[in-house]
Amino acid sequence: SSAPAPIIATLFPGDGIGPEIAESVKQVFQAAEVPIEWEEHYVGDQIDPRTQSFLTWESLESVRRNRVGLKGPMATPVGKGHRSLNLTLRKELNLYANVRPCYSLPGYKTRYDNVNLITIRENTEGEYSGLEHQVVRGVVESLKIITRQASLRVAEYAFHYAKTHGRERVSAIHKANIMQKTDGLFLKCCREVAEKYPEITYEEVVIDNCCMMDNLLLEKMEVSFLIFVSHAQLVKNPALFDVLVMPNLYGDIISDLCAGLVGGLGLTPSCNIGEAGIALAEAVHGSAPDIAGKNLANPTALLLSAVTMLRHLELYDKAERIQDAILNTIAEGKYRTADLGGSSSTTDFTKAICGHL
Amino acid sequence: SSAPAPIIATLFPGDGIGPEIAESVKQVFQAAEVPIEWEEHYVGDQIDPRTQSFLTWESLESVRRNRVGLKGPMATPVGKGHRSLNLTLRKELNLYANVRPCYSLPGYKTRYDNVNLITIRENTEGEYSGLEHQVVRGVVESLKIITRQASLRVAEYAFHYAKTHGRERVSAIHKANIMQKTDGLFLKCCREVAEKYPEITYEEVVIDNCCMMDNLLLEKMEVSFLIFVSHAQLVKNPALFDVLVMPNLYGDIISDLCAGLVGGLGLTPSCNIGEAGIALAEAVHGSAPDIAGKNLANPTALLLSAVTMLRHLELYDKAERIQDAILNTIAEGKYRTADLGGSSSTTDFTKAICGHL
Ligand SMILES: CC(C)[C@H](C(=O)O)[C@@H](O)C(=O)O
Ligand SMILES: CC(C)[C@H](C(=O)O)[C@@H](O)C(=O)O
Repeated sequence: SSAPAPIIATLFPGDGIGPEIAESVKQVFQAAEVPIEWEEHYVGDQIDPRTQSFLTWESLESVRRNRVGLKGPMATPVGKGHRSLNLTLRKELNLYANVRPCYSLPGYKTRYDNVNLITIRENTEGEYSGLEHQVVRGVVESLKIITRQASLRVAEYAFHYAKTHGRERVSAIHKANIMQKTDGLFLKCCREVAEKYPEITYEEVVIDNCCMMDNLLLEKMEVSFLIFVSHAQLVKNPALFDVLVMPNLYGDIISDLCAGLVGGLGLTPSCNIGEAGIALAEAVHGSAPDIAGKNLANPTALLLSAVTMLRHLELYDKAERIQDAILNTIAEGKYRTADLGGSSSTTDFTKAICGHL
Repeated sequence: SSAPAPIIATLFPGDGIGPEIAESVKQVFQAAEVPIEWEEHYVGDQIDPRTQSFLTWESLESVRRNRVGLKGPMATPVGKGHRSLNLTLRKELNLYANVRPCYSLPGYKTRYDNVNLITIRENTEGEYSGLEHQVVRGVVESLKIITRQASLRVAEYAFHYAKTHGRERVSAIHKANIMQKTDGLFLKCCREVAEKYPEITYEEVVIDNCCMMDNLLLEKMEVSFLIFVSHAQLVKNPALFDVLVMPNLYGDIISDLCAGLVGGLGLTPSCNIGEAGIALAEAVHGSAPDIAGKNLANPTALLLSAVTMLRHLELYDKAERIQDAILNTIAEGKYRTADLGGSSSTTDFTKAICGHL
């Protein structure tokens, strides 16, 4: 088959360990002959008035133009008068869905070995409205905003994702027993979309029940045990969730909780989906300034995020090949970075992955 | 020592399995010669206009008078025009702190064996304000309310609890990086109270980081692993949280998450603290109507909740004796109810506990 035309993608290497792990991605992509050309952008050293943050307008324009990008960790500079880098990206690029696949890595042992789920988080509203004020001295309030438009949009994304990725169940996570109007509207929208996908099972799970994950993941679960938890959990296969969709704050919490089950944010990918087909993949761990520049960082989260970007571009073959190479390298155990109990450098780990391609 | 004067306590056996597990508590208390007389109240069969719920005014008056009570599971009747039973109790009795001790049960294996923490949840405001409205069609909002008064009150309770229970650290859980005003006020109040308790270590943990519990509970944690999580987690002993204090919704989520780590809501106690020294202990699991009346239910959560009530009454000897008997019975493993993998009836399990007294 002839080589596809090269795709231009924006790359934000980010701060701290960012440049090293971004370098790892570049090498792996090169070794796998991924037809991507990177357009690199760094966080500026002063506030750009057009973005009200240290992100430059040019870097946002680059993502808007290329429609696809990869982002390393960015430490938001301390100080007043500017917006957080993450929140600026979400707002300016209208990144409405944050997608995080979360699965047990073969050969990397945690307390769980059967995790395989996807969290899909509404990424623009809810508790992240930024609307807060003091009512009287000593009394403050924050507004949680839920809209029909944003709820339908993320629900549609979740069901479409489930259908196109061979997933069987979508669970909407909520607290509508307390927030009847806001979470109630979110559920109403999910139900509307669910009707269009009769082949996907739809269920609703209250967030506090959902977070008793340890129960849900027990492989041999006594049915009588379930009597103490809510009916919503009485799913056919209680061992696993499949696709979870939820408002912003619950997504923030549950995606980290799930990452914790399989080894933490250093291992789990993330991708933000925006309107007009934008996809900005990102490693959501910190920039780890203490080990920056020491060739010690683990590039796995950024590499697997880059893989989600390839899937978004429908470069499925490349995505599979690279993901297999990463997972096989970790499973083999010969080359592992320090956070996984090994002693490999970032570059040796990267070379080992390239060797598996 | 001479017998103390009998204490009168309110008992809400509740619905479903409630009466059976309440009976278990009565028997164990009798066997341990606890100087308590129960005043029993059931949920009414119609809405009491004075409480706007199925809870009778008399039952609330009973708790107000006795200042101490125990509550089994209560299924809120379905239908409109009344308030949830749990929320009515919290509001009417001003139950401002929900305290849930959460520890690994010796001999009852889960994925974790070193859990020993206390969650203390603000129980009256936050996302539970009940204030919600539609702004325009398709746009709804909920108000999260945080007050200085309620935040100081629960923080004070948490630090006092830590000090009087030999605990070393209080962690305030928040999302003040997003909700700067509301969660910010909560943190400010915690810091103020922390200054009065120099012997207790105080820290702040962002809720999403906190929920990556699996990391925090790893006994042998690679320090380099921590680079990927927030600085807040770089506590001296990363293996364990101690006392956690937090706004209402985070408490709802984290207390269930923690319960899940040690076996679920069927095993974990809960106690609500109100003003004027009120304590209402409760089992927070469901009423399990499917096994009600079959002598199958596990009374552990209600029994351990009753123990927290005894501690509140400063009946420490009785509390210890009963708790030891419960834990020893479970650890021994000869008498266990079906949810714990055994085949004992509620009454046999109860007898076994009495035998350990
Ligand atoms: C850094 C913080 C603002 C952010 C969030 O709360 O969304 C982070 O936790 C995340 O999940 O991307
Ligand atoms: C039943 C529900 C209203 C309640 C809550 O959300 O507080 C429950 O989850 C709890 O934790 O007591």
